[in-house]
Amino acid sequence: MGSADVPDIVIGRLPIYLRALNFLLEEGKEITASQELADKLGISSAQIRKDLSHFGEFGKQGTGYEIRYLREQLRKILKVDREWDVALVGAGDLGHAIAHYGNFDRNGFHVVAVFDHNPRKIGAKMGRFRILDSESIPTVIQDMGIQIAIIAVPAESAQQVADTLVEAGIRAILNYAPITLNVPPGVQVQYIDPVVYLQRMTYYL
Amino acid sequence: MGSADVPDIVIGRLPIYLRALNFLLEEGKEITASQELADKLGISSAQIRKDLSHFGEFGKQGTGYEIRYLREQLRKILKVDREWDVALVGAGDLGHAIAHYGNFDRNGFHVVAVFDHNPRKIGAKMGRFRILDSESIPTVIQDMGIQIAIIAVPAESAQQVADTLVEAGIRAILNYAPITLNVPPGVQVQYIDPVVYLQRMTYYL
Repeated sequence: MGSADVPDIVIGRLPIYLRALNFLLEEGKEITASQELADKLGISSAQIRKDLSHFGEFGKQGTGYEIRYLREQLRKILKVDREWDVALVGAGDLGHAIAHYGNFDRNGFHVVAVFDHNPRKIGAKMGRFRILDSESIPTVIQDMGIQIAIIAVPAESAQQVADTLVEAGIRAILNYAPITLNVPPGVQVQYIDPVVYLQRMTYYL
Repeated sequence: MGSADVPDIVIGRLPIYLRALNFLLEEGKEITASQELADKLGISSAQIRKDLSHFGEFGKQGTGYEIRYLREQLRKILKVDREWDVALVGAGDLGHAIAHYGNFDRNGFHVVAVFDHNPRKIGAKMGRFRILDSESIPTVIQDMGIQIAIIAVPAESAQQVADTLVEAGIRAILNYAPITLNVPPGVQVQYIDPVVYLQRMTYYL
C-alpha cells in the first residue's frame, strides 16, 4: 500500500477525503458513494475513484464505500493512524495560536517543544509550554526523535531556522513564514501564507 | 489585462511570484531573470515564463525582468494595487490571531469588522476591535460594501456562516474552519487547514 509513483497532487487530496469521511461518520452515516463525496467536495466522482484506485479496491460497484473501513485505510496510507510529535519554532502571537490549536491534538499531531531566540521569552511559559532556547533545537529534536516542525518566525529568519531544523533531522516542515524555503531533496515543506490565498481570490473580484 | 481563460493554477502561482519579487526588491535588486526566480521558488523557469506570458511581455530576451515594473503589473493583474476591506467571523483564539496578523495590513487587506455569535463576546473589545453581533452581518457587510470575508468559526457552524456571508454579498471567503464549503458559482473559497498540510507530508515520512 502506498507507492512512490502516486502523484503528489493525489496525495494532497487524500486528507480532504479523510476529513469528509470523518464528517460523514459524525453525521451517523456508515456507507457513502463517490458521488456523495463529490457533491460535498466539489471534486468529480471519477477523480475520487481514480485517486483511490492508486491504493487498491475500497468500494464495491453499486454499494459504495464502507466509511469506517475507507477511513482506516486512508489513515494508514497517510500514516496518521499513529501519533506524531511536532516542534514549533516561534513563540509570538502566531506561535501562541498554533501551540493551542485544538485540531492538531485531535488529529494526532502533538506540539511537544516550543522554541524562540528572544532572551525575554526563553524560559517563560506560553500556555502549557515552557519556551526553549532556539540554540537547543538540535539537541532537543535529536533526543526526542522529532521529524515534523512548524515554523512561525518572521520571514527574515525562516530560512536559517529551516536549515537548523533540517540539520537536526526534521523531515517535514509546515512553514507559516511568508517566504519560499530551500530544503534538500527528501524534506517536505508545505506553506500557509493567508495573504497568498487572498491575492489569488481578488483576481476574480 | 487578465483573462477568464487563464487557468486557475496559473493565477495561484502569481502571488508566489509577487512575494519573491518583493523579497528581491528588499534585497536591493532591480533586475531578475526567470532562472533566478526558478531557483528561489522551485518552479521551472520555463513554467514561470509561460505563466507570465498569459498577461503580456514583461521581460526582454537576455536582459531579464525589471523587478519594480513586473511587480506593479502583477499587483494590477491580481487587483492588489488597491486596499481591500475584510470581514472576520469568529472571535476565538484563532480569530484573535487573524485579526492581529500584521501581514494582512501590510499587503492591503484590512480587517474592518469582527463578528461573533457568543453573547459574552458581543460588544467586548478584542485588541482594537469591538466584537459585533453575527446577527448584524448582512447589514454591516452591505453598508460597508465588503466583498472579502474570513471564517474562523468551528466546523459545525461554518456552512451556515458562509451562507449568511454570501447572501450579504461576500464574493471571496478564506475559510479556516476544517470543512469544505458549498458556495454558489462566482464565489471564491480558499482553505487554510493546517492538519491537511501535515497529513499530506506524513505520507512521505
